Amino acid sequence: MALGNANYLHIRSSYLFSEIADRVAAYAAGNPGKRIIRLGIGDVTRPLAPSVIAALQKAVAEQATLQGFRGYGPELGYDFLREVIARDAFAGLGVAPDEIFISDGAKCDIGNFQELLDERCRVAITDPVYPVYADVNVMAGRGGAADGSGRFANIIYMRATADNGFAPDLPEERADIIYLCYPNNPTGTVLTKDQLKAWVDYARKVDAVIFFDAAYEAFIREPGIPHSIYEIDGALDVAVEFRSYSKSAGFTGLRCGYAVVPQTVTAKGPDGKRMALNGLWARRQATKYNGCPYIVQRAAEAAHTPQGKAETASVIDLYLANAMRIKAAFEKLGLAVVGGANAPYVWVQLPDKMDSWDFFSLLLEKAGIVGTPGAGFGPAGKDCFRLTGFGNPDDITEAVERLKGLRL
Amino acid sequence: MALGNANYLHIRSSYLFSEIADRVAAYAAGNPGKRIIRLGIGDVTRPLAPSVIAALQKAVAEQATLQGFRGYGPELGYDFLREVIARDAFAGLGVAPDEIFISDGAKCDIGNFQELLDERCRVAITDPVYPVYADVNVMAGRGGAADGSGRFANIIYMRATADNGFAPDLPEERADIIYLCYPNNPTGTVLTKDQLKAWVDYARKVDAVIFFDAAYEAFIREPGIPHSIYEIDGALDVAVEFRSYSKSAGFTGLRCGYAVVPQTVTAKGPDGKRMALNGLWARRQATKYNGCPYIVQRAAEAAHTPQGKAETASVIDLYLANAMRIKAAFEKLGLAVVGGANAPYVWVQLPDKMDSWDFFSLLLEKAGIVGTPGAGFGPAGKDCFRLTGFGNPDDITEAVERLKGLRL
Repeated sequence: MALGNANYLHIRSSYLFSEIADRVAAYAAGNPGKRIIRLGIGDVTRPLAPSVIAALQKAVAEQATLQGFRGYGPELGYDFLREVIARDAFAGLGVAPDEIFISDGAKCDIGNFQELLDERCRVAITDPVYPVYADVNVMAGRGGAADGSGRFANIIYMRATADNGFAPDLPEERADIIYLCYPNNPTGTVLTKDQLKAWVDYARKVDAVIFFDAAYEAFIREPGIPHSIYEIDGALDVAVEFRSYSKSAGFTGLRCGYAVVPQTVTAKGPDGKRMALNGLWARRQATKYNGCPYIVQRAAEAAHTPQGKAETASVIDLYLANAMRIKAAFEKLGLAVVGGANAPYVWVQLPDKMDSWDFFSLLLEKAGIVGTPGAGFGPAGKDCFRLTGFGNPDDITEAVERLKGLRL
Repeated sequence: MALGNANYLHIRSSYLFSEIADRVAAYAAGNPGKRIIRLGIGDVTRPLAPSVIAALQKAVAEQATLQGFRGYGPELGYDFLREVIARDAFAGLGVAPDEIFISDGAKCDIGNFQELLDERCRVAITDPVYPVYADVNVMAGRGGAADGSGRFANIIYMRATADNGFAPDLPEERADIIYLCYPNNPTGTVLTKDQLKAWVDYARKVDAVIFFDAAYEAFIREPGIPHSIYEIDGALDVAVEFRSYSKSAGFTGLRCGYAVVPQTVTAKGPDGKRMALNGLWARRQATKYNGCPYIVQRAAEAAHTPQGKAETASVIDLYLANAMRIKAAFEKLGLAVVGGANAPYVWVQLPDKMDSWDFFSLLLEKAGIVGTPGAGFGPAGKDCFRLTGFGNPDDITEAVERLKGLRL
């Protein structure tokens, strides 16, 4: 008889966005004349860059001809894209094209990569956190049951709060798989090289693998902040890095990302021999994946041209300017705010440890502004609130005006 | 310490296509004037249909504008596509749009769907078979070690040979997950409704789930052959079906497919309660996947329009005509051949149980023709040979001429 995967019973349904939608709908019904401004949006809003569009059009036209048609592509990605990434994004860092695996997005890669490791591995994540890191491990049997706060019994949580400057301490329990995301979602904070080096050193010491989510790398503007974990000595032995064109080039609807898996990253096999994750990932992808669409890989390639880079950077500048204005507006209310400088996310510390859902209601009812309650990212976010810079600049201007009159 | 997934050590590297490539390269080097004809090709070769191209172009143009831009789509697929599939491909079969999950291809869905079931489930596959069915289960711990012939200890193999008309018998050991592919790869054979009903009845009796791979459904031309497993009474309770635009509309490089998961298909949970696979798959996809690109879903939608259907059908007619000519040419050599009528695949029974690699060499050296040794699809294929109809019609004409002079 077919038995279901019982691990799925531990997954808690996330009511975060449906609850937000319900509350916004109720407010809209009660305030028909009021324009609602959405500052909680986690998706890009600007159109694709002209050079990306041109590359798509050209690739589509090729598919209409017998000579230009491309069927199955290489499951791990076309060389033209793997090579340009190695040159453009990892110059001087010791990453080769065959260590770059093209996919349809970082979420898929992050979701699937844990398959390469034994189900007994202990997983460490931050709190607050992007919920996917936990959920995919719960599905694979590494979570156990959830408690009332939503924390899973077998996962190691590392608090990132104002107390530690949003840079979590090394875990007390020994971790085997460590998820780090910098620039961070949801806090918008970054790590210095020294801070990141502490994690690489820890992973080397305890023989752990770091899953480094660099999806927001393109938002870093401050000099000295590491864009890649491979800027840290020793990381090539212990870290895989996930990147995406979603936020860097507006590909959330086009779908392209990549995993960087150095040949030197290994895990221990049952016979004591080391298993190289590069070969395992190649095998996993060749077996369960059929490659990112050719036309999309051509679009991604265009994002690496000088014109493509200039175009996408100007869009990111716009999002960053939005984020900074949102940050300043909340600071003027006397609140402590982090993020926004090297990330699209702004993380507000609520007054007197106010509950994030209460603040959600207050902001909606008094200012007609929608954000995301920090509780949705974990218990450590329950007195925090996330806003993003992905909106329309005119909306930000209006929101800033409305916030001026807000009384907390 | 991070432990690797030891199940990966059981996976055997497939040298099939690299071995073919090596032998072809050696032949080409020794016969510089000889044109090699590839009849083993498993990929489509004709360009995308004009209506598909037009839909792509329109969708790309939308992404260049602020008003038309689409970011994250629904992880499970856009309603416009789920609805047209329900109407066009499953009319009258009781399949609703929310039972259709859009993805980037059937290989991914087939690879990932087994995650929803317990790792103790026993898996049954045919021999010969598309190797992915076995490999993804070996990776998940359901295979065990491989023997010298490449068979895994814990997988149930069901022979499909000339002896049983390529319709495998029900397994003697009780199976929990049953993979069926019809029209079949590699044999090109189909099942009648009565034959398929025996599988549905078996699955209902032993509480198994059928994974029905219908990737080649569009090649069925004979009346009465089931296009979907849901044409069989009772299948809505025990079968999920995987479909793809890869071979039906030439999307091997564009990537779109879908899984049909009726609300009524369930597995037993640890507490004895039934777990609905529809909800589990929705949760899996929402957590580990971010949706098929919008532009690709618009292209798939175009394949369902009257013009799109006419255009793609004419391409399939061309591939089928190729396959039938290949089949006839081998039959003229006195060989028994199946497939080709409702499938792009032609499966040749070799004379006097000749080894399929020997025949590969013979065909290459005497006729300059490349096919695929049946041994690559399992031990039961070791005296068979696969050819496909995906080539260029002029090449088929030349191949047929060359085969006329072949002495076995």
